[in-house]
Amino acid sequence: MDRLVPQKHLTVVKIGGSVLENPDTLNEFLESFHKREGYKVLVHGGGPQANRVGRQLGVEPAMHHGRRITDRATLDVVTMVYAGLNAKQLVSRLQQLGCNALSLSGPDGNLLTGVKRPVGDVDFGFVGDVDAGGVNVALLRLLLENNYVPVLNSITHNGDGVLLNTNADTIAATVAVALAQDCYVELVLILDHPGVLADPSDSSSVIPELRSDEVEEMKREGTIAGGMMPKITNAIAALTQGVATVRVGDCTALRNLDAGTQIFL
Amino acid sequence: MDRLVPQKHLTVVKIGGSVLENPDTLNEFLESFHKREGYKVLVHGGGPQANRVGRQLGVEPAMHHGRRITDRATLDVVTMVYAGLNAKQLVSRLQQLGCNALSLSGPDGNLLTGVKRPVGDVDFGFVGDVDAGGVNVALLRLLLENNYVPVLNSITHNGDGVLLNTNADTIAATVAVALAQDCYVELVLILDHPGVLADPSDSSSVIPELRSDEVEEMKREGTIAGGMMPKITNAIAALTQGVATVRVGDCTALRNLDAGTQIFL
Repeated sequence: MDRLVPQKHLTVVKIGGSVLENPDTLNEFLESFHKREGYKVLVHGGGPQANRVGRQLGVEPAMHHGRRITDRATLDVVTMVYAGLNAKQLVSRLQQLGCNALSLSGPDGNLLTGVKRPVGDVDFGFVGDVDAGGVNVALLRLLLENNYVPVLNSITHNGDGVLLNTNADTIAATVAVALAQDCYVELVLILDHPGVLADPSDSSSVIPELRSDEVEEMKREGTIAGGMMPKITNAIAALTQGVATVRVGDCTALRNLDAGTQIFL
Repeated sequence: MDRLVPQKHLTVVKIGGSVLENPDTLNEFLESFHKREGYKVLVHGGGPQANRVGRQLGVEPAMHHGRRITDRATLDVVTMVYAGLNAKQLVSRLQQLGCNALSLSGPDGNLLTGVKRPVGDVDFGFVGDVDAGGVNVALLRLLLENNYVPVLNSITHNGDGVLLNTNADTIAATVAVALAQDCYVELVLILDHPGVLADPSDSSSVIPELRSDEVEEMKREGTIAGGMMPKITNAIAALTQGVATVRVGDCTALRNLDAGTQIFL
């Protein structure tokens, strides 16, 4: 198979469930994503929607350090919400705009094979970890070269008939690394705030650039805390494995190269 | 794009939710489908699963002549169940067997564009009708030629951001017609009984061959009744539009050319 045009940019964009919760934010995101030029891949989660549907079904969400404990009933809920409702709503909206989106989960064409997380202090249940070796890059290339825009959700499989719930940030970083073999890859993580903030209470205090050697001190200071910590750790891991640039911010980071926080090695 | 190899057979197989309900039947089906040679496409519904999840969510199923009335809440349920849970479970199980399955709904790559059914005596809500002109044949060709096995569910879209629930038998027949431009296409409709029965109470009374000109009389006699009527009508319509052969039966009809009921023009 021919390689992707190497000088062409590829953007891997990850959105969380919070973007899907607010119709105005979602509209802004969809427009920005559609207008983004070059190859692009969207990765989405859907935590708030899964929590809501789960509760309606009597399946109470259980989290450990921000990661969802996924028993059999929870696996069914996230498969329904991420791979069904959220994926198809996103794709139909993107198609409406003229963006030729096509959604896939990990089992589809063996796109993303994960490994069930071993039981340690916590049994996460049907949670899978992935690495770049588990990505079917040929399938992504086939779709991109034929002008489809892959929309990926966080349901993977183990290759042995079992579905697994995988962190969407990790999927975005893993896919970005796998595609960086061929392309200049930018990874954009969309948040519900405009970037890494020097003062978490002040949304105008975005740190425009962050070098990896500054991160450890910022973690000690508490500037990088909570859910931002694994995002930044993922981002740096992606950079060390060939991703050209990582940007963290709100939807404006897709349109404006000066918006959000850019992370460097 | 190159045409599919014209002498190669393509089988479009449709299963209903009843096949998914029984683990033994499902295993038998998956093995039979995997062993089927040539190009193949699977189309599935999931009515019993959608009824169950819907009831758990307080969304009571409403049917009119065997067709689901699909209000907004029901649309969410069927999108979750057909495009999420059923699709991904089927694909992960097929991948386990070594069948390179890949599931798509109508909005994915604009695969199936439907038209919302006009409100007549009954308002079916978000129900869509499709014809062969609404099928993205190029996408199916791309996948088949690259050794993927498309697994389609009955969620379509109108191209304007709205998802629609479409009858899975109709999707199977429509896709079969669209692909018959290039291929020798066999359409196989898998039921929970072994074919069209001369005596509905006797499962050994399968009618092996049925000519289209015999159908009207069998409808009058009541031999073809209930849910079988639209299936046979769909089958004959597919034959008149280029599909080579239609077979109706249980899983054995995938393995044994003498099993089930074969329908002729």
